[in-house]
Amino acid sequence: MTGRDGGADIGPIGNSPVVVLVRPQLADNIGAVARAMANGGLFHLRLVAPRDGWPQEKAWRNASGADRILDALTVYETVAEAVGDLHRVFATGGRPRHIVKPVLTARAAAAELRAVCARDLRAGVLFGPERAGLDNDDITAADVLVRYPLNPAFMSLNLAQAVMVLAYEWWTATEETVPRQLVTHETRVATKGELDNFLGHLVGELDACGFLRNPPKRPGMVRNIRHFFGRGEVTEQELRTLHGIVTELAHGHERVRD
Amino acid sequence: MTGRDGGADIGPIGNSPVVVLVRPQLADNIGAVARAMANGGLFHLRLVAPRDGWPQEKAWRNASGADRILDALTVYETVAEAVGDLHRVFATGGRPRHIVKPVLTARAAAAELRAVCARDLRAGVLFGPERAGLDNDDITAADVLVRYPLNPAFMSLNLAQAVMVLAYEWWTATEETVPRQLVTHETRVATKGELDNFLGHLVGELDACGFLRNPPKRPGMVRNIRHFFGRGEVTEQELRTLHGIVTELAHGHERVRD
Repeated sequence: MTGRDGGADIGPIGNSPVVVLVRPQLADNIGAVARAMANGGLFHLRLVAPRDGWPQEKAWRNASGADRILDALTVYETVAEAVGDLHRVFATGGRPRHIVKPVLTARAAAAELRAVCARDLRAGVLFGPERAGLDNDDITAADVLVRYPLNPAFMSLNLAQAVMVLAYEWWTATEETVPRQLVTHETRVATKGELDNFLGHLVGELDACGFLRNPPKRPGMVRNIRHFFGRGEVTEQELRTLHGIVTELAHGHERVRD
Repeated sequence: MTGRDGGADIGPIGNSPVVVLVRPQLADNIGAVARAMANGGLFHLRLVAPRDGWPQEKAWRNASGADRILDALTVYETVAEAVGDLHRVFATGGRPRHIVKPVLTARAAAAELRAVCARDLRAGVLFGPERAGLDNDDITAADVLVRYPLNPAFMSLNLAQAVMVLAYEWWTATEETVPRQLVTHETRVATKGELDNFLGHLVGELDACGFLRNPPKRPGMVRNIRHFFGRGEVTEQELRTLHGIVTELAHGHERVRD
């Protein structure tokens, strides 16, 4: 990124989960996150709309040698773009309202991440901005919420501490978890980007047919739709079928009418 | 300490392990440590010879509301004083040379800490200074070393991250651990201060009789002696017996000779 070639050799980089910092505020914290990640064997970092832009010299100063993680990180404008090529997304520390998602402890999430990665699927974990945490829209992009079992009278992890606990659990989780093969070999799990592409198609058609005509209600309705289709693993084959269904429903009668 | 009355209610304070920061350098880190502790239900903080003195305003600014831990912390000149009233001492992150001590992972240490505290004994965990870590003398004061199972290619936790992992494991460890009752009810486990008092007695007599007359070798010999007597739990009854033995060995023959 900025042409540094310092930093420590941080070990072999396999298929490990991507850490996604959503709207991070302080470059110091981004550096501390990289340091925490390297300790726990996480190497892939993505930023969504960092408040002060990127790169920031301060991050490298605070990374304690985990330069390679910072050198290689990628920046996105939206959460959807940042998770587009992933298959499974976890969200930490959000305060979801009116959203029902599976919840796992950090330890159970780490075991699940191991299982997902052992199947050669790509996983990511979202961490929200320092003060506010993830908002409802961010959380909608996730399949699973991660809960940290900590002192309920004082729950106030800083960003790097939150990443540290997850990285520690990731490293501690054995790789022996038996992969749960939910999908046959004739197809493959769709990426978040492929799912997003379908949802764009669907919402576009719903706008066109007037289903989403009530502007104040539209965001919540779209979220619920995304939510429904994002539940569980969708295969690439299923998505093609769904695309067909939407197209046919929206335009099939036009052809019949002609 | 400095008359603050802000900060969050951080929950009930039971018999939980004392965190002992040995020669900490940065007040920022002391604040971040307090924050990490509160998250994991640890409330007792002690400092040994903080580099920049105490109190330091910066620590409160970095504690995110865990003010009560900082308000109540106590400062000592030496590790021996800081652990004087404790029964079991753990040391993290040291690089011991020529020292054989039991080693536990952070998770196993947390279970052990739960067991010790369930017996109403007082436990403490030493964390070394930011750069150097604990030295051999510091580690001699400990019964058990704690190992963090993290990426061997990049082991570089900052102080608050190291405390965070331990606090997280402390909170996560169940309290259901069956206390291992090693001591009968006729006596009680000696504190580190009582043990230290005996060791002072012993070393004084060894100096007086010339056993420790080789100055370059003296520190290592003293360390080995402390090490031997500090291994396992010593009861208050045993210490009285040992005091008697040393006194008799050193001076009994004088009385006989008179």
